[in-house]
Amino acid sequence: MVPPDFVYCERFTSTKVEILGRYGNRGIEGNRENNKGNAKISPLLSVFPVYSKTMNKIVQLFGIQHPIIQAGMIWTSGWRLAAAAANSGCLGLIGAGSMHPDVLREHIQKCKKATQKPFGVNIPLLYPEIGTLMNILAEEGIKIVFTSAGNPKTWTGWLKERGIKVVHVTASVKFALKSEEAGCDAVVAEGFEAGGHNGREETTTMVLIPLVKRAVNIPVIAAGGIATGRQMLAAMVLGADGVQIGSRFAASEESSLHSNFKRKITNLNEGDTQLSLKKLVPVRLIKNKFQKQVQEAEDQGATPDELQTILGRGRAKKGMFEGDLEDGELEIGQVSAILKDIKPVKKIVEEIISEYEIVKKEIVSKTAFFPYSRF
Amino acid sequence: MVPPDFVYCERFTSTKVEILGRYGNRGIEGNRENNKGNAKISPLLSVFPVYSKTMNKIVQLFGIQHPIIQAGMIWTSGWRLAAAAANSGCLGLIGAGSMHPDVLREHIQKCKKATQKPFGVNIPLLYPEIGTLMNILAEEGIKIVFTSAGNPKTWTGWLKERGIKVVHVTASVKFALKSEEAGCDAVVAEGFEAGGHNGREETTTMVLIPLVKRAVNIPVIAAGGIATGRQMLAAMVLGADGVQIGSRFAASEESSLHSNFKRKITNLNEGDTQLSLKKLVPVRLIKNKFQKQVQEAEDQGATPDELQTILGRGRAKKGMFEGDLEDGELEIGQVSAILKDIKPVKKIVEEIISEYEIVKKEIVSKTAFFPYSRF
Repeated sequence: MVPPDFVYCERFTSTKVEILGRYGNRGIEGNRENNKGNAKISPLLSVFPVYSKTMNKIVQLFGIQHPIIQAGMIWTSGWRLAAAAANSGCLGLIGAGSMHPDVLREHIQKCKKATQKPFGVNIPLLYPEIGTLMNILAEEGIKIVFTSAGNPKTWTGWLKERGIKVVHVTASVKFALKSEEAGCDAVVAEGFEAGGHNGREETTTMVLIPLVKRAVNIPVIAAGGIATGRQMLAAMVLGADGVQIGSRFAASEESSLHSNFKRKITNLNEGDTQLSLKKLVPVRLIKNKFQKQVQEAEDQGATPDELQTILGRGRAKKGMFEGDLEDGELEIGQVSAILKDIKPVKKIVEEIISEYEIVKKEIVSKTAFFPYSRF
Repeated sequence: MVPPDFVYCERFTSTKVEILGRYGNRGIEGNRENNKGNAKISPLLSVFPVYSKTMNKIVQLFGIQHPIIQAGMIWTSGWRLAAAAANSGCLGLIGAGSMHPDVLREHIQKCKKATQKPFGVNIPLLYPEIGTLMNILAEEGIKIVFTSAGNPKTWTGWLKERGIKVVHVTASVKFALKSEEAGCDAVVAEGFEAGGHNGREETTTMVLIPLVKRAVNIPVIAAGGIATGRQMLAAMVLGADGVQIGSRFAASEESSLHSNFKRKITNLNEGDTQLSLKKLVPVRLIKNKFQKQVQEAEDQGATPDELQTILGRGRAKKGMFEGDLEDGELEIGQVSAILKDIKPVKKIVEEIISEYEIVKKEIVSKTAFFPYSRF
């Protein structure tokens, strides 16, 4: 199936690239003459999951413009953030984990008014009133649900029966396979560097994405350590079909985090977060007074019960929503060390896509300009 | 400086890509006529750190073929591995950390006989007889030294005075900056997923490489989570100038690890390693009987002294060199979960480079075939 001799020609201008010819073996004019019905594409050249409206599986699955999911984060992803992400060409997600059922319904209704584009809801399956939430999703006509923190078999069938697309968030090959078996449409593979709750295996994005991609046939969305176009392209090179971005959207104008916490996120350095509470449910936290209490207790061999006592109730709300930077639980990803400003979602998405395209073009151009570098 | 209208044409065959024409605006024949002295290159198109003999900083720095460093690992990287890596176009490193001074000298002398290509030595700066080792390096005419586990200021000046190129292994921006200040020629930025001793900040490759690349002007070598061409390209996309590969070379025919341990490496799954002994010096270990003892002690709040007692002496030799898979200390990276076979170094390097080039070509080809995905 590989044409024995295959040519393509491109014209670069300062604003666009045009394909001048693709087939044949005598250059552009030759191509036009020789290219009658000879539309075979080399299998070797058609494997890479390219970001493209016609090709990309995530873009196709959700009917969106960019293969970017705005993560549905607790105390962060309300209707304003989800609608802004949707209006910027991404999949917006409302984070139901921190919402009472009536609050979730309100956010869904407001989001519908704020965007005509597709959006979804993230639901942690360990949510106490999970049945109530699921019924609200169905009643409100939600078409996309991301589930996390639980067994994907419990609700996927119920949701699929109602015509809802289901994606499960996993941190391991084992749960990615379970998600595929359960009938999920795609899977999020989330690395150790991600914020919030995290897998016990501690596998990083660099290692997890190739492993999950080899294991499952459904599309794979990479999460953890992705805030820039360069990191997005790296995730795609690793095999991802799309990316889920959390921290970068947490530090947006439209996120519902307290402004104290947003400012804190943009003033972090590398090493300022730590995966904590491993004996309960591991969660990546900023190293503040509360996290240090937890760390000291863990270093001294605290039991799960003792850790639960230190954690108490409402810690995440206190820190993330009410802005108590010392006694609150502050969940954020390692990649926060890269973030230095709070921006509107539209600008964030534009910058990511722009950098993604520039780095991709750099690769194309370099390989074209320096032929001896290729083989 | 950007030519207003710029064309390039490539011919793909199943084995190679030829550049047919680059300049002008009327295709290949037109190029040849129009291209007299018009050799300007767009600045936008010349930023990406491409793997190339003429362009790549790591290839230039060491005079090697591929921007790949074979990590100098304890009980693993003897003269056979270093010579095989050098003969395959990479920078081979002897791992001095597990060698008595006379053993190091013997390995250097044997390596010189086994290859005409450049090779170097990795020295942990906490080595007790460090001065003796350094004198051996100078006496034996070693031209490249990688230092790790210590302050880069201590020995870099001494080595540089003797015309030796120095690279320091770091796991944080802070130490990367110290390395640059100390006069190092390059820096290895090693992520949390890497095997062996590891940084306390636990920053992963996905996040660490962009941070270090922004912070320093010297070339950056990415390490941690890199065993395939796809992972190598992802590291280069993140901003690395080259990569250091450990686990993949540990599971080579030429590494000096015990065959029991090599087989173990190729039978691991994701989640089978754990960063351990954090109260001493953090090290990534396979979860075996010994590691579980350590883990239990840590969970119960063991002090550094108690952990040191469990560790005892000679644990790494016992596991890695003598093949005791239960009571030995088995250091390996997370990426081992991807490795399923023991191969000769030459084949490993060929496969990495081949996959790297294919994935790069996939990007080029996809972007050429689907122009609407580009802008």
